[in-house]
Amino acid sequence: AAPLAAPAIAQEMPEIRWRLTSSFPKSLDTIYGAAEVMAESVKAMTGGKFTIQVFPAGEIVPGLQALDAVQSETVECNHTCSYYYVGKDPTFAIGTAIPFGLNVRQQNSWLYEAGGQDLMDAFYANYGVRGFACGNTGVQMGGWWRSEINSLADIKGKKMRIAGLAGKVMEKIGVVPQQIAGGDIYPSLEKGTIDSAEWVGPYDDEKLGFYQVAKFYYYPGFWEAGPTLHFMVNNKKYDELPEAYKTALRVACSHSNDVTMAKYDAKNRLAIRSLVGKGVQLRPFPRDVLDAAYAATQELYAELSSTNENWKKIYEPWKQYREESFQWFRVAEYTLDSYGYAMQAAGK
Amino acid sequence: AAPLAAPAIAQEMPEIRWRLTSSFPKSLDTIYGAAEVMAESVKAMTGGKFTIQVFPAGEIVPGLQALDAVQSETVECNHTCSYYYVGKDPTFAIGTAIPFGLNVRQQNSWLYEAGGQDLMDAFYANYGVRGFACGNTGVQMGGWWRSEINSLADIKGKKMRIAGLAGKVMEKIGVVPQQIAGGDIYPSLEKGTIDSAEWVGPYDDEKLGFYQVAKFYYYPGFWEAGPTLHFMVNNKKYDELPEAYKTALRVACSHSNDVTMAKYDAKNRLAIRSLVGKGVQLRPFPRDVLDAAYAATQELYAELSSTNENWKKIYEPWKQYREESFQWFRVAEYTLDSYGYAMQAAGK
Repeated sequence: AAPLAAPAIAQEMPEIRWRLTSSFPKSLDTIYGAAEVMAESVKAMTGGKFTIQVFPAGEIVPGLQALDAVQSETVECNHTCSYYYVGKDPTFAIGTAIPFGLNVRQQNSWLYEAGGQDLMDAFYANYGVRGFACGNTGVQMGGWWRSEINSLADIKGKKMRIAGLAGKVMEKIGVVPQQIAGGDIYPSLEKGTIDSAEWVGPYDDEKLGFYQVAKFYYYPGFWEAGPTLHFMVNNKKYDELPEAYKTALRVACSHSNDVTMAKYDAKNRLAIRSLVGKGVQLRPFPRDVLDAAYAATQELYAELSSTNENWKKIYEPWKQYREESFQWFRVAEYTLDSYGYAMQAAGK
Repeated sequence: AAPLAAPAIAQEMPEIRWRLTSSFPKSLDTIYGAAEVMAESVKAMTGGKFTIQVFPAGEIVPGLQALDAVQSETVECNHTCSYYYVGKDPTFAIGTAIPFGLNVRQQNSWLYEAGGQDLMDAFYANYGVRGFACGNTGVQMGGWWRSEINSLADIKGKKMRIAGLAGKVMEKIGVVPQQIAGGDIYPSLEKGTIDSAEWVGPYDDEKLGFYQVAKFYYYPGFWEAGPTLHFMVNNKKYDELPEAYKTALRVACSHSNDVTMAKYDAKNRLAIRSLVGKGVQLRPFPRDVLDAAYAATQELYAELSSTNENWKKIYEPWKQYREESFQWFRVAEYTLDSYGYAMQAAGK
């Protein structure tokens, strides 16, 4: 007799177990949690059939090797920031954030609705992966400084823990960028080995205690307007998934993108108050620092466009999108934000 | 012989078919589409087992009866704005948007991470439903005006198509609010039966052609900073769902919330350029109009808090959240937006 056919449902919903290597430690609970939110959603929606186990940075591979681990199929997927891989190609930075770039909504709309995702995935394909937006921190802070910065002159020669394209921009305006792992920042700031360090924003920064050794907290972190976290998946593994699981991954990443931003917005609002209560001195970067950094950024982008075809191919339409998007946001969104914040500042 | 036991998977993933009544016509493709994005995601993620058929306003019940239809179990769910039901209780407005309220990110973080969802669901439970955020338009425009508004005096006595709490605020500052269905706005503006009408934003407004009969397009729509669309579901029907489907609904709504905002941001950026190209005159509301409306809004909220316990219970923590959230957004987010937009305005 013919064997019983497996029920259709069992073929549609196979048991699949993946491993995800995060670029983040568990202590960064919101960023790290963005991968957990995604994985738990996928598991629940597939009735437990498709599970993705999340490993913190260092358990399988170090945090900054998360792309390599997916490319080599050590794991099927990761949770990371594309800009960690600017050493391979600076084009990676555009997927997460480049200095004076898009804010969160602009970044999402560029990725989802204006060709950004396709452009980035075509580039990521050179590394055998694709990337889904999976969380955002919002505009980050401009870091902790041991002394006040009253003008561009004050920033010259300062040693700052900052990496990537942001480090290159800071270098152009006289800062000495330093590459220091997260755990070494506090002692370096305390000893004065460095003068400044950027990390994330109030919620994450407060936990690391930087305010105890550097009391000036500058804003805005102009190098990260809407930094996108990524769920990256090996293309071969992704292509093997049934359609239901592909959709579950995409939808769960988007969900995590939505709620992770909400988490940061809720947590940072409390942390900034707490920090100010602890004596932290909030300071805006002086205008001449921003102007010098803005000019240095344009210079850097011109250099990259003239030497890197990958960069140019994505940066040029990105730049046009930024131009158009800024024009629209300046109309309704910015005007209403401005009015509301002005009324609050006036005590009304 | 004993009948074959149904496989466990079939119990976990039963066939369920729901109907959704939308408050929107198909012509509002982005808003209407937000329900389709949600429904298609749920269907795909459940391997076609859980389907939600979306019906445009009017096919099952009129758009503004979408809540009643869910409460009475005519359909299992809807896609609507909670503020359409302010006639039942003004408290409904807080779920979508109230004048000078929260922007999109602030609204999301209040709902998801600061108790807003629980407060609103406890209130919606009086009507037998719960509501998930499922799309947003961003700050809307301040409507189409047949003549220029140069000061508060110019607005007095003007007949404006505007409803809900926004209509009450406008009435307090001298406007005569009019309730007119979407399809009647264009002829009313054309004939001069009304002087002004608000609709949504550039993308939706352009399709209705208002620019042909009222050339002044004001901003910002201060009554809708981050208007949240809702997927409302009958609580009894929701409670009957398997956990996998509950999660699928929640995650798919959040996904739609994420991408619908991105769609509007991408589409509006093009539509605003197109409208300006057609001779539309963009104008900010004069400061005295905003100031009068802001004061009228505070007056309205005080009245509601003194007469409506439901309102007070939600509005008071909402107001505190707004205060704290505005303080944080003024630091990093607003400063960087301001700088970028100022540089663009300066041609840099």
